[in-house]
Amino acid sequence: MRRSAIPLPYLGDGRGPTAAQAARAEMRAGRFTGITRGMALGYVQCAMVTLPQRYAYDFLLFCQRNSRACPVLEVVDAGETEAKRSAPGSDLRTDIPMYSIYRDGERVEDVPDIRHLWRDDFVSFLIGSGITFDQALERAGVPTTRNRWVLNTSTPTDPTGVFKGGLVVTMRWLTPEQAVTAVQVTSRFPFNHGAPIHVGDPAVLGCDLARPLIGPPVDRVPADLTALFWACSVTPQAVAIAAKVDLMITQAPACGFITDLEADKICTP
Amino acid sequence: MRRSAIPLPYLGDGRGPTAAQAARAEMRAGRFTGITRGMALGYVQCAMVTLPQRYAYDFLLFCQRNSRACPVLEVVDAGETEAKRSAPGSDLRTDIPMYSIYRDGERVEDVPDIRHLWRDDFVSFLIGSGITFDQALERAGVPTTRNRWVLNTSTPTDPTGVFKGGLVVTMRWLTPEQAVTAVQVTSRFPFNHGAPIHVGDPAVLGCDLARPLIGPPVDRVPADLTALFWACSVTPQAVAIAAKVDLMITQAPACGFITDLEADKICTP
Repeated sequence: MRRSAIPLPYLGDGRGPTAAQAARAEMRAGRFTGITRGMALGYVQCAMVTLPQRYAYDFLLFCQRNSRACPVLEVVDAGETEAKRSAPGSDLRTDIPMYSIYRDGERVEDVPDIRHLWRDDFVSFLIGSGITFDQALERAGVPTTRNRWVLNTSTPTDPTGVFKGGLVVTMRWLTPEQAVTAVQVTSRFPFNHGAPIHVGDPAVLGCDLARPLIGPPVDRVPADLTALFWACSVTPQAVAIAAKVDLMITQAPACGFITDLEADKICTP
Repeated sequence: MRRSAIPLPYLGDGRGPTAAQAARAEMRAGRFTGITRGMALGYVQCAMVTLPQRYAYDFLLFCQRNSRACPVLEVVDAGETEAKRSAPGSDLRTDIPMYSIYRDGERVEDVPDIRHLWRDDFVSFLIGSGITFDQALERAGVPTTRNRWVLNTSTPTDPTGVFKGGLVVTMRWLTPEQAVTAVQVTSRFPFNHGAPIHVGDPAVLGCDLARPLIGPPVDRVPADLTALFWACSVTPQAVAIAAKVDLMITQAPACGFITDLEADKICTP
């Protein structure tokens, strides 16, 4: 079994910032605008969906009804900019390396700071990301940096109000031994998508292998590997885009919000 | 290790009702008005909180912010009476053996049928109950019928809108060996309160041992037993009562709503 070179999280000694706090400070200062995979390992990463308040109930209920894809870890109320439960001292307007701005369902620009766009009626949803369990998988000898895709499917979500559409999944190809370990490990993270929703044939979910959202086009699963599928936190963004919300802000792809929640504690906030 | 006499759930053979469907039918016909502990074992049981729609967003968000105590398994929209996701064919107005009616925070009566009280603006929340994992505990040799209390505490919940107040917990006294098994078993039910929130001294949570909500008054934990504490689904009812909602309906104590969800599948609905 391969040993991971990924270190344990630096949880702080009370005399300086933790790895999560330091990462957010770099983003806030505008010094880091890249992807967050591999950053502040051991801390829970989230997708963010920021919407006008009139959508908040339907969106929260959509997330409840599709909680494997949309595990809400914190809701930041209208008029507030700090994720005070999962990341005290944070500022949602600056502490993500890159944001995507959607107007009427069209991605119009990516920006590293959204203070100029912020409105007092914005409600923000922080939704647990599967990136969170990468470190635990690596520690258990399951590789996370290759043979990995984000895919649209024709599997419907449970619709609520204007929010509806297909489930988005993360597909990983693993050896049979790794596949079993991956089910065991990810089962320990029920609030970050948890166990796979499917193992085996991508056609069962109606996966769009020709046009992955992340990763190269796929022909077929190699005979010696097993495909595993997790519900993905791109799902809530996809349905919000499809609903043509007049103004919506999300993290840019793979640019997560790093919380102070420690992944191995498996806790809800 | 004691073997449990509790049978596996009867999951149906497609030719007749399952144990869950049969139990709901008895309640609907008015033939069963008692407590549901031990009924339709293997099926997820829920607490119900029915509120006017104007409270729905704040209550749903309260549940998200206190999800260890308030794991929402289904929200039944205004104008609907069927829990179509967790119990297709059910009727929330008749399929619970006994209901408690609260007006302005006062429990005014208990009734076996609420069709005459139903309003089109009622939204119902089904919240996973710890009764759900009793069968799994019994199968593992952990007794569930004695040394068990429901207690108020001075541990605050995370408030939302008008909803705030102390956490309500389930306390169980177990042998040290049973305590370890109970942590293992209940960890497998993250959407029915999951693992204990505390082990040991009741004073740490500020438990009101003199006035249990269920069970006799308690003096001290016996030296040879370990006290374990789970967040309890009485919590959301307690905060809704404290908020003095003008009209609220819940299941009567220990009279749960029996869903078709199979507890051992650990799934969200």
